[in-house]
Amino acid sequence: MDELTIKDVAKECGVGISTVSRALNNHPDISPETKKKIMGVIKETGYVPNNSARNLKRTDARCIAILIKGITNPFFSSIIQIVETQAQKKKYAMVIQHVDAYENELDVALQLVKEKRLRGIIFLGGAYQHDKRKVEKLKVPFVFCTIGAVQETGKKTYSNIAVNDRIESRRMIDYLLDLGHKRIAIITEGTEAESVGQLRLEGYKDALTARGIAIDERLIYEVEDDEDPYSMENGYITAKKLLDSGVDFTAVFAIADFLAVGVCRALHEAGRRIPEDVSVAGYDGIPIGEFYTPKLTTIKQPIGKMAEKTIKLLFDVIEGKSGHEHIYFPAELVERESTGKPNN
Amino acid sequence: MDELTIKDVAKECGVGISTVSRALNNHPDISPETKKKIMGVIKETGYVPNNSARNLKRTDARCIAILIKGITNPFFSSIIQIVETQAQKKKYAMVIQHVDAYENELDVALQLVKEKRLRGIIFLGGAYQHDKRKVEKLKVPFVFCTIGAVQETGKKTYSNIAVNDRIESRRMIDYLLDLGHKRIAIITEGTEAESVGQLRLEGYKDALTARGIAIDERLIYEVEDDEDPYSMENGYITAKKLLDSGVDFTAVFAIADFLAVGVCRALHEAGRRIPEDVSVAGYDGIPIGEFYTPKLTTIKQPIGKMAEKTIKLLFDVIEGKSGHEHIYFPAELVERESTGKPNN
Repeated sequence: MDELTIKDVAKECGVGISTVSRALNNHPDISPETKKKIMGVIKETGYVPNNSARNLKRTDARCIAILIKGITNPFFSSIIQIVETQAQKKKYAMVIQHVDAYENELDVALQLVKEKRLRGIIFLGGAYQHDKRKVEKLKVPFVFCTIGAVQETGKKTYSNIAVNDRIESRRMIDYLLDLGHKRIAIITEGTEAESVGQLRLEGYKDALTARGIAIDERLIYEVEDDEDPYSMENGYITAKKLLDSGVDFTAVFAIADFLAVGVCRALHEAGRRIPEDVSVAGYDGIPIGEFYTPKLTTIKQPIGKMAEKTIKLLFDVIEGKSGHEHIYFPAELVERESTGKPNN
Repeated sequence: MDELTIKDVAKECGVGISTVSRALNNHPDISPETKKKIMGVIKETGYVPNNSARNLKRTDARCIAILIKGITNPFFSSIIQIVETQAQKKKYAMVIQHVDAYENELDVALQLVKEKRLRGIIFLGGAYQHDKRKVEKLKVPFVFCTIGAVQETGKKTYSNIAVNDRIESRRMIDYLLDLGHKRIAIITEGTEAESVGQLRLEGYKDALTARGIAIDERLIYEVEDDEDPYSMENGYITAKKLLDSGVDFTAVFAIADFLAVGVCRALHEAGRRIPEDVSVAGYDGIPIGEFYTPKLTTIKQPIGKMAEKTIKLLFDVIEGKSGHEHIYFPAELVERESTGKPNN
């Protein structure tokens, strides 16, 4: 059986998690009866409070690190939470380290390994190509999460858990083509970065080329700010440029949902209806896509499954139960309100 | 003069930050001419690459910690970025520590201080009341950011940087009352938590009571999930309950913008137009409020200023240049598209 969590205790007692927390922390603001009941259930079930404060004591003994490029990305937040929960169950402490846009994540990792006796590392975001020597220098098990196994170098020394960005992106463009769109604009990351943006642009080109549609460079827009490339504001600014250019288009594929939100706003302000005048498609499957109006059509990455596989694989490698793996999860094209047939 | 950043170098060279980064990291994917130019500018200007990897070496010597309750909150992400930038300028390393919903942030801090020779701590989010003994035990300088100085205990041993949640919340309700609304629903955090949600609810009651409007408990809705209370989904679910209850209302005040987004979606699905049928107001001033349709009326917290003051004050206290301070920043009521006069 899985280890009990505070949530289970709360459910069992019919109270909220914060109430159980108060009971555990000897907080004054809880009735003696409630506290007694909660402590009773805790005793019965054998629940062991498993908080970071206690785990920190063991940091040196059992610790993993998660290195994140792009801390504002809500997509990563949910992965971090899942990894953290699983790490706690294994009684591992977890260090969260932010990697700046201009930093090389492997440099940061190599330095971190010197500082702390890390058992393993998870990389979230970042480049898909890495310097072979740096990869070889990093002697602890590591997993790239959300970054596919593009590179052959050093494949045996690390794992990849991702969706196949090139193929999934192509799937979205095929869907738009099937709806009847021919003039599809793409809003992507600067093509100089070796990022998922680059792979998604390749997928866009693959789909068009396969149908014999010439690539029109006037429909390819790169966002400018490379500090926070996937922001709503970047989507908004870039869509305004696209609109101002006067070039014809009936659909926009933004390579991240956050960008798509900005695109929708710019179209709304320009009096273009979505999807009647312009279809908008995103990528990632973050919560805003479900609560935006119109709801966003998107490529939904199976974040929960990817996060769970990432942490399980890392522990399996640490414990010698498994070698490294390179796994592509299938993503799902979720058709919502922001796409439809072209008007003309 | 302020220390040069990589951004300044990039601007000076007329290239992107990632290009400067490639030059610094001896990345193969950069032309020799560009690299030469960049390295020339770096030499001229005396820019010192100041990345976390290098700073990590000095972790034990000069390190601050930032403890975050609610890591998914985009509001906190921008504060973290500002604090991190300033810490780097001071050549301090920064540890980011996530505090679980059921954990006491002071417990986590006390443990962290034992592990690392921290010079100071910043708390983001969390409760406004704390156990006096724990406060006294924490011997390093600390600043509560976004949490006001409600408590008198130990005021001299820490700082507070926040907006006055009770007063700002009342300001929003006054604005809705001035528009002519009388039946104003509020969607807030569970009232058992000693959180900003509680203070914002007090502000709501203050405003109504001052105008002689009786508090109608049927208009007060608490979100259920206390693990991620300020989520869009929580706003959506709670607004659906409000709609299903059949109780009359012409405005909804959601105590966080994320909640307000969910409220808007629920109203849209119920065929209620915003603001023609129902006005919706949020709180925080996060980016989604500007890119959502309708744009959200909100209480905009001066996040940038609060973050800058927080880190400046912490360093001033560390360096003995200042004592602790308890500062309320004025927030701004930003009137956008989601509020208007009531229909009837």
